[in-house]
Amino acid sequence: MLHLQSESTKRWLNQVDQHLDEVLIDHAHCERKAASTAMSLMNSYTENRELCVEMTRIIEEELEHYHMVMEVLDEREISFCRLPSGHYGRELNALTRPQEPNRAVDRLLIASLIEARSCERFKLLAQHIKERDPKLAEFYASLFESEARHHTTYVQLAEHFAARDEVMQRLDQLSAAETEIIAKGSPLARMHS
Amino acid sequence: MLHLQSESTKRWLNQVDQHLDEVLIDHAHCERKAASTAMSLMNSYTENRELCVEMTRIIEEELEHYHMVMEVLDEREISFCRLPSGHYGRELNALTRPQEPNRAVDRLLIASLIEARSCERFKLLAQHIKERDPKLAEFYASLFESEARHHTTYVQLAEHFAARDEVMQRLDQLSAAETEIIAKGSPLARMHS
Ligand SMILES: [Fe+2]
Ligand SMILES: [Fe+2]
Ligand SMILES: [Fe+2]
Ligand SMILES: [Fe+2]
Repeated sequence: MLHLQSESTKRWLNQVDQHLDEVLIDHAHCERKAASTAMSLMNSYTENRELCVEMTRIIEEELEHYHMVMEVLDEREISFCRLPSGHYGRELNALTRPQEPNRAVDRLLIASLIEARSCERFKLLAQHIKERDPKLAEFYASLFESEARHHTTYVQLAEHFAARDEVMQRLDQLSAAETEIIAKGSPLARMHS
Repeated sequence: MLHLQSESTKRWLNQVDQHLDEVLIDHAHCERKAASTAMSLMNSYTENRELCVEMTRIIEEELEHYHMVMEVLDEREISFCRLPSGHYGRELNALTRPQEPNRAVDRLLIASLIEARSCERFKLLAQHIKERDPKLAEFYASLFESEARHHTTYVQLAEHFAARDEVMQRLDQLSAAETEIIAKGSPLARMHS
């Protein structure tokens, strides 16, 4: 249902255990960037009414998530700051084909995969910290459903720009690439490292 | 209170009378662009918490306005489409000084002036069409207060990046430029032509 071709590993959970504060800060940035991606899709495909309606919903939800994460940072007295970005988003976005309508399909499917990976990791994280940090575990459990819904919305919108078969085939290709990119890991502790 | 140095003229109202449909379509684009400007300021100054809170509010309000204008287009059976942009936003944004923190001050003050001009024109338009088109007049009357509030918010945020005197002096300069830019007019019928 999430169209991911791998599960996150112990390597990432170890990194989170060692650098939870940094991962939480990165998470706030991720939510803001998710809102920004939706805004930028709305700007690019402004004549597609359904897309604009869905992007509005996603922008509002991601900004709500962003403020929720900022509150978690406040409660934990973690000071928010800029962080150098990991390789994940950059390498995934680089796979976007330049010509329309392929470009639209790829931008939507890459957004869908980032949502899917967030969803998978939020769920895993919630389970991993359940005993130790029930409050944070509950927070992550509350987020993963909306990220799953965002994943589905983006895949469905891609079908406005190409036939379903073509969309599913391209999703399969991009998802294989996503699995390779996330498997590399990163020395920077991030939500998608 | 709006820091504008001129009032919109009969020339613009005549243009609106002749091309109301096109101005309404442009208005929908303006609301989307206003949301996008706020998102982009949030991305650039993400460490400024108050700015991020205010930008979130503005994004949500502008997207709400956007959907309200889209409904007005639907009711009037006007089909929404892309429009070539007028000179107004482009010429104003070109005045942004490149170095921070001047850049932040200018981006915020230019956004504040666009809000102010929208506010002034919404109010004028509401009065102008009151007899002929009371429903649309009421719609415009309902919008201008929030644009006035956005103007004030942007001016106040500029004071996070420079002393109040400096902000007010720069606002005066940019407002003088705004008056020159809007006075030129445009052959394209737009909210800011
Ligand atoms: Fe989210
Ligand atoms: Fe999401
Ligand atoms: Fe607005
Ligand atoms: Fe506004």
